[in-house]
Amino acid sequence: MSETTPYGQDVLARVADTLHSRRPDQGGDPQASYVAKLLAKGPDAFLKKIGEEATELVMAAKDGQPDRIVSETADLWFHCLVALTHYNLRPEAVLAELARREGLSGLEEKARRPAE
Amino acid sequence: MSETTPYGQDVLARVADTLHSRRPDQGGDPQASYVAKLLAKGPDAFLKKIGEEATELVMAAKDGQPDRIVSETADLWFHCLVALTHYNLRPEAVLAELARREGLSGLEEKARRPAE
Amino acid sequence: MSETTPYGQDVLARVADTLHSRRPDQGGDPQASYVAKLLAKGPDAFLKKIGEEATELVMAAKDGQPDRIVSETADLWFHCLVALTHYNLRPEAVLAELARREGLSGLEEKARRPAE
Amino acid sequence: MSETTPYGQDVLARVADTLHSRRPDQGGDPQASYVAKLLAKGPDAFLKKIGEEATELVMAAKDGQPDRIVSETADLWFHCLVALTHYNLRPEAVLAELARREGLSGLEEKARRPAE
Repeated sequence: MSETTPYGQDVLARVADTLHSRRPDQGGDPQASYVAKLLAKGPDAFLKKIGEEATELVMAAKDGQPDRIVSETADLWFHCLVALTHYNLRPEAVLAELARREGLSGLEEKARRPAE
Repeated sequence: MSETTPYGQDVLARVADTLHSRRPDQGGDPQASYVAKLLAKGPDAFLKKIGEEATELVMAAKDGQPDRIVSETADLWFHCLVALTHYNLRPEAVLAELARREGLSGLEEKARRPAE
Repeated sequence: MSETTPYGQDVLARVADTLHSRRPDQGGDPQASYVAKLLAKGPDAFLKKIGEEATELVMAAKDGQPDRIVSETADLWFHCLVALTHYNLRPEAVLAELARREGLSGLEEKARRPAE
Repeated sequence: MSETTPYGQDVLARVADTLHSRRPDQGGDPQASYVAKLLAKGPDAFLKKIGEEATELVMAAKDGQPDRIVSETADLWFHCLVALTHYNLRPEAVLAELARREGLSGLEEKARRPAE
């Protein structure tokens, strides 16, 4: 990673690594860690947060407040990363899927989906 | 970026660049591009998709189907990137926010938030 | 019900009756009926609409537009009624639950729930 | 209200009346009442709950648990009623809209909407 890209995949990978260490089967302590607690509670606990954070992002966007939009997007992606952790999935797989779609179609792949 | 990390921030940045080119003020053509159409319609069009894709991710997770979880997460993040594009924000800002939280607190920052 | 209350429970019960008739096992025709089509597709189809309509209600509320708030609430409740239909449940059960809570506690029951 | 319709519109109207009394401008006390607290905090507080409860309903439905489906639908409708209260709207208006659609079209009105 160059000095001009101080964040990036490495952030997602690093967050995913930390989240992995919070899994109950990795010794995550629900008393000490918010994430370990969410993971110990099971899917409904963190999936509910995805619905909640998506709504908060929508509200921040309606208010047009850039800082809140960034912060709520971070909250939403963070809880997506928690969900991926639970299912033993990695953010790299999500990025690969985004890259695949872009490669296929210049992002126009969805335009070819049939209307609902 | 090394050959062992073929995706990563570069994917998010590249997708963001492409999305930027779909903005109406950048010549994006709503007839030709799904994203240009969403951006031309205005916030409600893509914010609604964020709510919808979040729900689809929750359902995929409840079904425990790894491929769908990855695919729906990609859909959700993609529409978040569309929203960021509309508000002239970049995914790097979201990653920086995630990195900041991790640096601050080993991801435990949320644990210190007061209960609702 | 008096003539001064032409809507009410009867509306929800009547809508539920109509929705019931759209079930595939009641002869509902997916080609002719939006609801029959949703029910034939299975839970993900109408549950996704619940997430979508909830988001649309939130956006209408943020815009403070009374007509849209009413219309989006109707959309949301309608798709809840479709879900109840699929699971062989009735809106009367939801109303009974609301009445039960009010009776118990003057609506303050939730205040006694432990914080998350 | 007759004995054969122990719930119904009257439940929604009665809940709406109680919620109205929780408005800050009606003397609702945020210290004593969950609803008064939500209303005092402003729209984002109860709109966020709509997103959250919609997600919880979706999860209960995926689990196919009738009691939870009824309970989560009640939670969702309850928070919709809180939102209506804030905007000086009544559940009767939502029911009238549902009745209007049914009258118009035997619930098929949505089928005539153009595909997205």
